[in-house]
Amino acid sequence: MVEIVETKSALRARADAARAAGQRVGLVPTMGFLHEGHRSLMQAARRACDVVIVTIFVNPMQFGPNEDLDRYPRDLDGDLDACRAEGVDIVFAPSIREMYPREPSTTVVHVAELTTGLCGESRPGHFDGVTTIVTKLFAITGPCHAYFGRKDAQQLAVITRMVDELDLPVTVVGCPLVRESDGLALSSRNAYLSAEHRTIAPQIHAALCLAADAVAAGETDPRRAVDIVRAHLRQWPDFSIDYVACVDSATLQAVDQIDADTLLAVAVRLGSTRLIDNVLLGASS
Amino acid sequence: MVEIVETKSALRARADAARAAGQRVGLVPTMGFLHEGHRSLMQAARRACDVVIVTIFVNPMQFGPNEDLDRYPRDLDGDLDACRAEGVDIVFAPSIREMYPREPSTTVVHVAELTTGLCGESRPGHFDGVTTIVTKLFAITGPCHAYFGRKDAQQLAVITRMVDELDLPVTVVGCPLVRESDGLALSSRNAYLSAEHRTIAPQIHAALCLAADAVAAGETDPRRAVDIVRAHLRQWPDFSIDYVACVDSATLQAVDQIDADTLLAVAVRLGSTRLIDNVLLGASS
Repeated sequence: MVEIVETKSALRARADAARAAGQRVGLVPTMGFLHEGHRSLMQAARRACDVVIVTIFVNPMQFGPNEDLDRYPRDLDGDLDACRAEGVDIVFAPSIREMYPREPSTTVVHVAELTTGLCGESRPGHFDGVTTIVTKLFAITGPCHAYFGRKDAQQLAVITRMVDELDLPVTVVGCPLVRESDGLALSSRNAYLSAEHRTIAPQIHAALCLAADAVAAGETDPRRAVDIVRAHLRQWPDFSIDYVACVDSATLQAVDQIDADTLLAVAVRLGSTRLIDNVLLGASS
Repeated sequence: MVEIVETKSALRARADAARAAGQRVGLVPTMGFLHEGHRSLMQAARRACDVVIVTIFVNPMQFGPNEDLDRYPRDLDGDLDACRAEGVDIVFAPSIREMYPREPSTTVVHVAELTTGLCGESRPGHFDGVTTIVTKLFAITGPCHAYFGRKDAQQLAVITRMVDELDLPVTVVGCPLVRESDGLALSSRNAYLSAEHRTIAPQIHAALCLAADAVAAGETDPRRAVDIVRAHLRQWPDFSIDYVACVDSATLQAVDQIDADTLLAVAVRLGSTRLIDNVLLGASS
């Protein structure tokens, strides 16, 4: 039986009680509309922790004024089914008012450097919203293992840095990206895609694979890897490229030469839908 | 016996062990050079908590480039004596490298609104440094009661807001300002004053008292209260007034009319020394 918790005080009490009983708490922060990617995070938490908490909260603070907050997909009943199926113990599904009694929050957690490039460039303020809500969730839940997907590679790097620099008592666990069988990275936003765009969306991964193949064959020039991705995507005029970049996976700084820590990251728009994907070059993609 | 702890991991372990044993942890964050004001915080913590932790760390992040970081007074031996005398259990005295392995920190906790006026105006970035280090100390110490003096009224308001908005598991306790017998608010920076400036420094409190007396006699106009302070201080040309303001003690916004929550706050320079003081109008000063 999954327990549904709607208040911060109740979640804090449950997490405190679990730890007091010597249990390890696992936290999976999500915005709901759960897919197999989220479920892989729950599974990782279930394997390593005694109490698994999934949070479902579409965080207004991480959406820009012209972004998709209002139409972001929601399905609490389906999410609860997924959580039950994965053996989750607690679902925390607070209201906006519960999380932000004062809105907008005057307190903001900001991570410089890591948040200016890549998605930060076209989504100003986005990562401030992410780091602030995650700090709040960590503060309510207390010491825990927290699970994040590697699809949001920049988010993972930013949260890892934040936890390190604020000395938060949290172990951040990055989990492998999960894909559809045709290669499309799972995302709640895939639900926005038209049938036509859904058929070409897997070309994002195909482009990354072409670059990864070249690297596996000896290519070490990040500009070449980026060019391979761009050239592939250009075959479908519906792709509007936001960025294609080779960066260090921890510092997110551009690299001169590809090595095992190099992330090849891409963001594109298909119609009004923004999709991101990445592969770690040098690792098996 | 006071225990001296220099690493974050050791402090975390001690605080966790105390809480696991059912003990309440009290935290007194300081920059050292402890005076009776700090001692009153330790006493408040000692009365209410089982384990009292005093942190001594001159936090570079809260000093501006032209401020007094290098000459800020330090006296660890004297501080340890004071902590022993007050029955403190643990002194946390980390190095800069221990607190900031990466300097400057790329992660910053920022509280908007409350930090722009008063001291924030002449000390840009100061409160970011305060809120960031305090978040770190709270994260290391874990759930606790944390004690701050009301002399730094803006700091107290900012930290109270931050704890509320980030849902930190900390009870913030504001403690009364402590004065010398001649009325000068205790501050580590009083050590900078020349003998001559030391003799006129109590006029800051005298000016606040004149305004408080007027309010006690029925004055409700904040402009009049401010004028009384300014007029009094103008008698000593060595005072350079940074600000005199009547604000709400929680929101720090200027008030139209004085009530029991109105703070009359002042910052002046005497030579190169910046001094702050305040009284809560409507309360007994």
